[in-house]
Parts: sequence; structure tokens; C-alpha cells
Amino acid sequence: MTTATPTTTPTTTEATTAAPAYDQLRARLREIANLTAVAHLAGWDQETYMPAGGAAGRANQSAALAAVIHQRSTDATLGELIAACEADDNVQGSPRDAANIREVRRDYDRATKLPESLVSELARTGSQAQEAWKVARGANDFKAFAPWLEKMLDLSRQKAECYGTPEGGELYDALLDEYEPAARASEIDAIFTPLGERLSALIADLRENGTEPDDTPLNTRIPEEMQHALGLRVLEAIGFDLKQGRLDVTTHPFCQGVGPGDTRLTTRYRDERFTDALYGTMHEGGHGLYEQGLPRHNEGDPFGEPIADAISLGIHESQSRMWENSVGRSNAFWTWALPVVNETCGNALGDYTVEQMNAAVNTAKPSFIRVEADEATYNLHVMLRFGLERAMIKGDLAVQDLPGAWNERFKQLLGMDVPDDRRGCLQDVHWSFGLIGYFPTYTLGNLYAAQFWETINEAIPTLDDQIAAGEMGELLAWLRTNIHAHGRQYHAGELCQRITGKPLGADPLLRHLESRLRPVYGL
Amino acid sequence: MTTATPTTTPTTTEATTAAPAYDQLRARLREIANLTAVAHLAGWDQETYMPAGGAAGRANQSAALAAVIHQRSTDATLGELIAACEADDNVQGSPRDAANIREVRRDYDRATKLPESLVSELARTGSQAQEAWKVARGANDFKAFAPWLEKMLDLSRQKAECYGTPEGGELYDALLDEYEPAARASEIDAIFTPLGERLSALIADLRENGTEPDDTPLNTRIPEEMQHALGLRVLEAIGFDLKQGRLDVTTHPFCQGVGPGDTRLTTRYRDERFTDALYGTMHEGGHGLYEQGLPRHNEGDPFGEPIADAISLGIHESQSRMWENSVGRSNAFWTWALPVVNETCGNALGDYTVEQMNAAVNTAKPSFIRVEADEATYNLHVMLRFGLERAMIKGDLAVQDLPGAWNERFKQLLGMDVPDDRRGCLQDVHWSFGLIGYFPTYTLGNLYAAQFWETINEAIPTLDDQIAAGEMGELLAWLRTNIHAHGRQYHAGELCQRITGKPLGADPLLRHLESRLRPVYGL
Repeated sequence: MTTATPTTTPTTTEATTAAPAYDQLRARLREIANLTAVAHLAGWDQETYMPAGGAAGRANQSAALAAVIHQRSTDATLGELIAACEADDNVQGSPRDAANIREVRRDYDRATKLPESLVSELARTGSQAQEAWKVARGANDFKAFAPWLEKMLDLSRQKAECYGTPEGGELYDALLDEYEPAARASEIDAIFTPLGERLSALIADLRENGTEPDDTPLNTRIPEEMQHALGLRVLEAIGFDLKQGRLDVTTHPFCQGVGPGDTRLTTRYRDERFTDALYGTMHEGGHGLYEQGLPRHNEGDPFGEPIADAISLGIHESQSRMWENSVGRSNAFWTWALPVVNETCGNALGDYTVEQMNAAVNTAKPSFIRVEADEATYNLHVMLRFGLERAMIKGDLAVQDLPGAWNERFKQLLGMDVPDDRRGCLQDVHWSFGLIGYFPTYTLGNLYAAQFWETINEAIPTLDDQIAAGEMGELLAWLRTNIHAHGRQYHAGELCQRITGKPLGADPLLRHLESRLRPVYGL
Repeated sequence: MTTATPTTTPTTTEATTAAPAYDQLRARLREIANLTAVAHLAGWDQETYMPAGGAAGRANQSAALAAVIHQRSTDATLGELIAACEADDNVQGSPRDAANIREVRRDYDRATKLPESLVSELARTGSQAQEAWKVARGANDFKAFAPWLEKMLDLSRQKAECYGTPEGGELYDALLDEYEPAARASEIDAIFTPLGERLSALIADLRENGTEPDDTPLNTRIPEEMQHALGLRVLEAIGFDLKQGRLDVTTHPFCQGVGPGDTRLTTRYRDERFTDALYGTMHEGGHGLYEQGLPRHNEGDPFGEPIADAISLGIHESQSRMWENSVGRSNAFWTWALPVVNETCGNALGDYTVEQMNAAVNTAKPSFIRVEADEATYNLHVMLRFGLERAMIKGDLAVQDLPGAWNERFKQLLGMDVPDDRRGCLQDVHWSFGLIGYFPTYTLGNLYAAQFWETINEAIPTLDDQIAAGEMGELLAWLRTNIHAHGRQYHAGELCQRITGKPLGADPLLRHLESRLRPVYGL
């Protein structure tokens, strides 16, 4: 065999025009989803196995495919089919189908509301701004980046205006809505503000009155191959199906649901600090479990329909954080994991006890870089960004004043003076390519995870014992039934109310952090 | 970051209707090529890294993308643009542009001549027939496969009729033309028949009057990692650019040109018989060098246009066979390679001489399975299949008579009795999915390689010395200039005439085999 591609080109089965609108709509959504799956694959490949020489070509390939997907997603006939389904009593009579159509409408409106010129402008300027950001960060030169940030903010405001300010909300909410549907900045602020105050106080108390745990065990050197074997073992234990997924190595870890039966995780290894990869893998594994739990992997599943998709980044992050933190940074987990690490990694932790391991992974130590922050201080980094980006969109904060505002607020929240913009407002890539409204979802994830976790522990009183025995099946089954299987049926806030009986609040996360940190700090 | 895909969808730059037809045509071809590149990636991934659970989804994804590509390739506007270019004196005045348009027309006509119903039927039945073939081969049950072969032959005849019998040709030529444009079965037959007779005679002579070389050195066990390092070293030596390509492991080795700057090879390793992977890698590397030499990898190259594509499977195979056999099975190659293998693989061949290695890889030993055949007998396997498939399409051979005809002809050509259909007419996958007209290109590749090789040795008199020193640059530069850079400008026969000054013939291949085999058999 050689390189030839067979010239026979099978066609997809298209619903005939005689089929009911809902069936026709589903067939179209499935086609779009199939094309999107290939686009996901191209993105995954770009980060994993693509040779360097393929980069320029890949950009063109992804753009060509994105254009096809965009055409299909904004097709006028699609709009007509949605309208027909909205008027169809059979569809509207089923809560699941009605939710499905509500979400299809949402996607279609969002896709059609942006003029093509703005879409291109955002992509082009975002790509240039990202390059400018890289250079500016390297040179610690905020002034060089400022005009690009200005442009991206301006384009983001234009985008938000196309979407329209949601009822009872502000312009920023139109951006936030892309990542966290139906969320409102004012509601988030009402949770973040007290959370920030109490968290700062907790951290100050720990550091002033407690004894910082010894993190020496984390410096144990474990070779990459052993860490990889451990990662696979842990993924298997938490229930990630490796026959329907993979684990590879990339510079920046991520989880990419490619298509049905195909969910791909990545991680990165450092010989020292093996817990980076261990918790990184559990984090991406948590995302992967959510993806694998969505109703899209079996024959007859509604793959391509919103009901088969994740509801929000906040809920997605709740799943990754739950496995990484609620499970992974507990005494119960280390009871199971310590012998497993020793078995897999040549008795590397033979000198340590479960209690020592648990203490080592539960610290609260302010630092400048968000992605290196611990579980507690991480949220303060997020709040800082949320407040500043909201103010910039509102027009309350000028770009030129960003470094000063950043440093001032950082001092309030984390108690330290930012030494330079590289370790300050230039550290994250997000704003450079227009990801505004994204940051708060990180802490929303922690909040949802903590609130769900309290409910789960009531539902499964023996959960700690199960985790200590490496039995994660009942926990996963609970998540499957109560969260994963719903797809986009309930918005995040509604899902939280259904599951926990309460709206999202700050208390569970604070209780969780207090109960984890106080004991290891001897308080 | 989590799994979210940015919703901004960049659009491709489309030529405006004001642009000249040739520019508009090129922009459309580039879009089709970009989408096809992603389809190639999906195919590569399916064989390399896709988890097993993704198979069903991938089939749908590939079908959806193939349908988009088919729509784009058969679009009526594309036909109008081609007609406009055919009538454009500027385009027709340049031999390269005129050839480009000639080939675009060919592709468009072939794509539009098949009704969608037949395309679907071929894909569906081919997929079922392939499953049936697997079962039948396993059970050595030709009767179970016969009705499927009947169907695929019938569909293939329908396909050939849609394309139409080429002038002065037969129906089979319409199928052959897909893989080897402008080739004619009668012309191939006029070369294959004397080649077969003289080759059978040569092999019989070697076996009766010569001494079979000792192939013990090939049984040297070399661990997979060392073989992989060796493969990369050899690819580097022959000039394959690993920054614009990769080498991975698959069940069936192949070369896939994904897109600009991205050419991927695969191989497979067995601890024993390290030469399987070594020559497999050189073979795919030869395909890869052709792909990397096509004018599609730099800014401004005509990527997507026929002029940037390979001309035929025969020419493609000539490039793989040349590196595998003309280079790889020579004393000169082993002069360079023996110390390299010893260096890379822990002195594994320390007990052997260059002459012993060269003798071990040059044998002519009839066997039943084509893919395991040596360089000489391989061609007899191909001729057998070519004769039989041509007769079946013509209607001169009924499916039920295939096993008998196979075994009779096998005896004539290779002098052995076929023990069962599994090792006879059931061994290859090709016919089950309608690849009829494909087989002859394997031997055409050997013939072209041998004929080119004689010309190259006249052009580069010191070639042997260069190879012995591991210097392959002048050879590669010659191939780049005389073959690769032309893309589809000249059909294979025309290219052969231009390069060698003669039409394709059997003599060079026979001379090559005689000169390689007689000495090692002591004749």
C-alpha cells in the first residue's frame, strides 16, 4: 500500500425533508458535531504529535474546517428547523427535548449574532496580540502590550454588544455567558467578596499561628516512566476508561473530548515534584470522567445535541477539582495511594507515612503565579482577575492603570508586593486572545465541587473508607447519575439547587479548606 | 484550561468573484486540500493513537468530512471555473499551468461521473465485503467470500462504465486509470508477460544451479528500541526531514502525507528479523521523500493543485522500491550500514562482514504469501493477480473458477502447489473493498525504479562510492529535480521517456535482479 486515498467518498445519511423537523435538526447537529470532532482531533494533534514543520499548514487546515463548521452552524435552514421545533408541542412537552431545543437556540443565536467581519477580526487580532504578549512578558514590558490589550478589550466589548446585555445584567455578563451560561457577575461577586475576605483571614491565621507542614516528601525524585505508570494506575482507579481515552505528554496539560468513545488527556512530568503530574493527571482525569459520562458514547446516544454536552466551564472544573482536591488531597486517598506509589515507583515514598503525605500536599502559601498556587490561595488569584477584567469591560479601569490596580489588589488579597509585571498582570495568556469572562469559572469550579462534596458525603456516608480502599465506583456512579448524565439540561445554578437543595454559596468551600488546612497546621 | 473550544470561528480567505478564474480555482482547490489534509490526519490517527472505543465515532467523522469534500469537489461552479481556464490563453500558454488544468479536469470529471448512489453502495458493500473476507480467510472458506467478490466486481464494472473505457483500451483500464493515469492493461501485459517468463527462468536457474545465501545474520535479535533508533538514523541518512515528518508504529506500515510540512511514516518491529523493519522503514521513507519533494511545503507553493501531487502509484512505488532495494540491498549500502547498525544496536552484527549481510538480503525463494516475498519473486505474485483481476472484469473468468485459476497460474509462475485458499486467492484484502487495478502498480514501481536507476548511475558515476560513504545527497537531489518537483505535470510513461529516453521495459529490472542475485548464488 502507498499513500493513495481511495477516491470513493461515502456520504452521510441526511434526513429527508419529509422527516419531522426535530429529526432533521438532529441529523444536522450530528453532522456539525462529527466535523467538530475532527477539528478537535486536529487541535489535539497540534499539541502532541504534529511535526514542527506542519504548523503553518495546520493553521490553514483548522481555519478551513472552522469555516465549514461555521457555515453549517449558521445556515438559515437550521434556524427554520429550530423555529419549527419551538412550535412543536410534542417536542416542548418533553422537558429533556425542550431543554435541548432551548440550548440549540442559544447556540444558533450566539453563532449568528456575530458578523463574520468581527469573528475574523477577533481571530486575527487575537493571534497577533498573543504574539505581542509573549514578547512583552519576556521583556517585562507592559507598555508594549497595552495597545494590544486595548484592542482586544474593544473587540470584546463589540462582541458583547452583539450578544446583548442579558436581562438584569451588565455588558460583562454577555461575555461570561459564553463560558458559564446564565451566570451573572453581580451574583458571582456576592459570593466572591465574602469568600475573599474569609479566605485571606484564614491564610493569615494559618501562617501566623500555625506550623507550615513539611513538604520534603514532594521533592522525592521519581523517573518519568514510573510517574507515567502511576498516572495510568490512578486513572484506572478513579474509573477513567483507557479503552475510550488516552494519556499523552504536552507542555500544557489539557483534556480534549474528541468524539464518541474518544477522550484524550495530557500531562507533563518533572523528575522532581512528582505531585505536579499526579495531581495534574487527576485534574484532567476529572474532566475526562465528565466527558466520558456525557450521553454521547453509545449507539443511539444524542451525540451532537446539546443534551450530550457539558453545561459550563464551572461545572466542568468542579469535576476536575473534585478528583484533584476533594479526593486527591485527603488522608483517605493517601491511605490507598501511598502503597500504590511505592509499588509502582520502586518504594520511592518508603520513608513516609500517610499523614506526612497528606500534610505535604495541604499547604496555603501565597505566591505570585496563579498556575503554581495551592488549593486555597488559587481562589484569591482568580478573584483578582475577575474584579479587574469586569472593571475594564465596564470602563471603570483604564488599561494604563492595570498594573497599579493589580499590585494594589494583590497586596490586599495575598499580602505581598508584586515585584514586576511579569509576575503580575502579564502572567496569563487569557486576555491576549480575548478570553474575558473565563477566569471566574476556575473558582466557580472549586465552589461547586465543595458544595457537591458535602451532599455526596451525606449520600455516601462510607465514602472515606471506600476511597481509602481504592473503591471509587460508588462516587463515580453518583456523579454519573446526578451530574454527567444531564448534559446541558439544567444550567449550573439550577443543577446546584437540584443537587444540594441550595444556591451556590461560599460556606462549603471555606468549611472544606478549614477542615483540611487547620489540622495540618496544628490548629 | 478545560475542554472548551473557543467559539470564534475564523473564516478562510475566499477569492472574490472579481479575481481571474485561475485564481478563484486555486483558492477552491486549496480549501479542498486543507479539508483533505484533516481527513488524512484522521486516517493516520485511526491507525496510530486512536483509542479502540473511538472507532465507530471515527467512521462517522470521516464520512461527514468526506461528504463535505465530495460536495466541494463536484460543485458546479468549480466546473465553470475549469472551463474558463481551459479557454484562457494565458493559462494554456504555460505548459505547467496547462498540465495543472488538464489534471484538475481529470479529477473533476472522475468525481462527477459517479452517481452518489454508486459511491455509497461501493463504500457500504466494500465495508461489509471486507468483514466477510476476514471471516472467510480465517475459515479458509472461499465459497463464503465468493458472493461478496461477485458484488464488488459488479459494482467495480459499474464504476468503470461510468468512467468510460478509455480510447483504444478496455473496461479494466478505466479502473487502472484511477491509480496509474493513462496506463493501459495491454501495454502492461506486453511488459509483464516476457518479464514473468524470464524471471521464472532466472529463479529456477538460481535454485537449481546456485547456492542459496546464508540468511542467518537476519535472525540476529535486536530489541525494538534499538531498531527504532536505527530506523531514525537511516531516515536521517537518506534525507527524510524528521522536522517535517514522523515515524510511528502500526500493524500495517504506511506513509501518509498529511499536509504541507507534515509527512508521516509508520513501521513495525519484530525482535527477530530486524531487516523487516529496516527495509520497511526505508520503503516508507522512499514514499516520504517523494512526498517531501513535491512542491507543496513552502509559502507560495501550489499546495492543493495537481501540480503539487504525486503522479501515480507506480511512480510513488518506484521511489519506495528504489530506496528499499536499489540502495538498501547493495554492497555499497551495507558498507555504510554495517558499522551504523553495530554502533546503534550494541554491536549486534559484530560477527558478520558486509558481503555476508549483502548476500543474506538478496535471495530468491518462492513462497505463498505476497507480502512476505523477496524482491524477485514478488513480481510473480503481482503478475498473477493482474492477470486474474483483468480476466474477471472482462468476464473471461468466473468468480467460482478463481481458486482453480489462481493455483494453476501460481504453479506456472512460482513452481509450487498452493495448499489452501488462505495461502492462495484469499490472502489479500484489496479485492474485498474494490481495489481493482491497484496490484499492477507494485511491479510497475519496480520496473520504473530499475529503469531510473540505470539512468541515475550514468548521471552519477560515483554513486556507489557515495552510498558506501553514507552520502545520499546527490542521489536525492537528482530525484527531487527529475521526478519529485514535476508533481503531476507528466504522466508516468511520459516521465519515464523524458528521464530515460525510452519507454518502460522489462530489461532494466531483469538486469538489476540478475546482477544482484547471480553473484550471491555463486553463478
